[in-house]
Amino acid sequence: MLVFPVMSTFAVGVDLGGTNLRIAAVDGDGNLLEKVTLGTQVVKGRDYVIGEMTDAIKALIGKYSTKLELQGVGIGVPGIIDKRTGMLRESPNLPGWDDYPVRDEIERRLSTPVILENDANVAAFGEGWLGAARGYNEICMITLGTGVGGGIVIGGKIWQGMNGMAGEVGHVTVDPNGYPCKCGNRGCAEQYGSATAVVKMAREEIDSGNAPEMAKLADGHSPNVEFSARAVFNLALQGDAAAQRVYDRVGSALGILIADLVNVLNLRMYVIGGGVSAGWQAFAPKMFEELRKRSMVYAATAPPDEFIPIGAAAMVESKQPPPYRTIVTRALLGSDAGLYGAARMPMTVKS
Amino acid sequence: MLVFPVMSTFAVGVDLGGTNLRIAAVDGDGNLLEKVTLGTQVVKGRDYVIGEMTDAIKALIGKYSTKLELQGVGIGVPGIIDKRTGMLRESPNLPGWDDYPVRDEIERRLSTPVILENDANVAAFGEGWLGAARGYNEICMITLGTGVGGGIVIGGKIWQGMNGMAGEVGHVTVDPNGYPCKCGNRGCAEQYGSATAVVKMAREEIDSGNAPEMAKLADGHSPNVEFSARAVFNLALQGDAAAQRVYDRVGSALGILIADLVNVLNLRMYVIGGGVSAGWQAFAPKMFEELRKRSMVYAATAPPDEFIPIGAAAMVESKQPPPYRTIVTRALLGSDAGLYGAARMPMTVKS
Repeated sequence: MLVFPVMSTFAVGVDLGGTNLRIAAVDGDGNLLEKVTLGTQVVKGRDYVIGEMTDAIKALIGKYSTKLELQGVGIGVPGIIDKRTGMLRESPNLPGWDDYPVRDEIERRLSTPVILENDANVAAFGEGWLGAARGYNEICMITLGTGVGGGIVIGGKIWQGMNGMAGEVGHVTVDPNGYPCKCGNRGCAEQYGSATAVVKMAREEIDSGNAPEMAKLADGHSPNVEFSARAVFNLALQGDAAAQRVYDRVGSALGILIADLVNVLNLRMYVIGGGVSAGWQAFAPKMFEELRKRSMVYAATAPPDEFIPIGAAAMVESKQPPPYRTIVTRALLGSDAGLYGAARMPMTVKS
Repeated sequence: MLVFPVMSTFAVGVDLGGTNLRIAAVDGDGNLLEKVTLGTQVVKGRDYVIGEMTDAIKALIGKYSTKLELQGVGIGVPGIIDKRTGMLRESPNLPGWDDYPVRDEIERRLSTPVILENDANVAAFGEGWLGAARGYNEICMITLGTGVGGGIVIGGKIWQGMNGMAGEVGHVTVDPNGYPCKCGNRGCAEQYGSATAVVKMAREEIDSGNAPEMAKLADGHSPNVEFSARAVFNLALQGDAAAQRVYDRVGSALGILIADLVNVLNLRMYVIGGGVSAGWQAFAPKMFEELRKRSMVYAATAPPDEFIPIGAAAMVESKQPPPYRTIVTRALLGSDAGLYGAARMPMTVKS
């Protein structure tokens, strides 16, 4: 008798950031086969970047499709995507990519189905597959990067909303008279929870004359905001009061934001990722204090110990026989969440 | 050849309010067959109220099940329902109903399947079936009554969240340092958008000495807060500045709340109902101004004329070829939304 073994599968995930272009082949069980990192040479234009990307994808497909069955290609992009047309609608970090059939062009060059998705949504999907929210079908992910993004997963699928603009949690109002935001609002969560905001609030502390340690730091400051946000965090860890005041404001804003999300969505799992989430120790106490005060839904369902170790959410869950626990925890996969999430997308499409 | 006509269907919907107990037989096409209104004699206790309710339901079932096939009984209840057990978890207006198998007891007495659901969720479902959101599968309804409640419909189904607590839009923070709320938070939407809040803010205007007309009104004030909120609205319509200031605060808070909801959910349809929605003319201009400013998602998708006549949402939609329009409109069915929504629930359950 001849036995035809069932072929294992793989997919290619792409994280097209404003700085790095990362491409990975991932198998159906979530094992990384290979990862390629290129600089995103945005200045060389759209066609150049797409060419670099498709060349690298083709190389990976060529290498692995002899042994594994290709499921497709998923690409996470910073910006709003029109899912019908496969075009970018707003993408400040990729100038000149609007009104261009990005998905169709990449599909044409690869002769393979391609799924485009907003990067924050993709990260939520990745953390749900292999990260902090592994095994959860309802997830809200908040990404604290240069800005604040978000992604919502409902029923195991990315919740797009009407036109792909769902999950804009960074623009939820946490203080109606607060800092102006470029979106036109005041007091958006992004104005308090992003790396840019940490640096801005640190600058205010320095200008007030009450932050001598931060002032020293600022003399040799880095142009990279995520790096600078981390430097403020390090000072907070060392007990610097001004740096801690900055992170208390981060925590307070996140507490208000998450309280709103819990009250409206009542999901089981909220994951906080992005560069600023490295400052968890400095902002989490204030965040949980605010969250408990501002959401009775959270207060009724909070785990006894909120400070769940990274990745231990599932354990905490199983220790709590009443199945109603609202978990707020840190992301596990770091910047790889977007890569894994992107690769996962074509694997979950039912044709 | 014998022809067996397919039997038409009906269901019984119940709206169990703190004041009125209303019971209706509704056919599968949404026609009201009969409506019964009883006072909810909460003081006589749970068993008395359940007895009154089941007697009236039995009478309707007896009358209509000879000609129509009964689909079941749906009951809207003020409070949080544990869907697994069919018990009320929190229901301040129905003291003594906690920790009692409400659904099972009603099912036992009727020998018919019963669905219990939170009243704000049921109203959203009713407006989606026959009201302002007719034909929409994704709806958020905000009910401005004594408090502020909410219901979210996703994929044509009530979005329960983890444990039935989703849609608590009344406790979204619209001002982090605002009025204290009994939920433990400050600045909840309910503290600005409910009838209770309108009366409270009117009282503040009177106490400030700048509201002579409202002061006259307050001398003969009614103990019914929804009636009083309407009296303040009538003054605002007559051009009274103090009354308009109160409704501007209502509009401002609702604008912040809906901006948050649009940014997070990106639904097509937001419906505002409940007694205070009668004051639409007085609060809507400020609400839309705030909403447009605070949600870029809304600003990108707002219909050219926001002041959509009641019930005309579908028309507006069809006039806009790009299919992405965020509609914010008034509820159509008034207090009947809960009755129709309750009757609809057993009709949509797939067994």
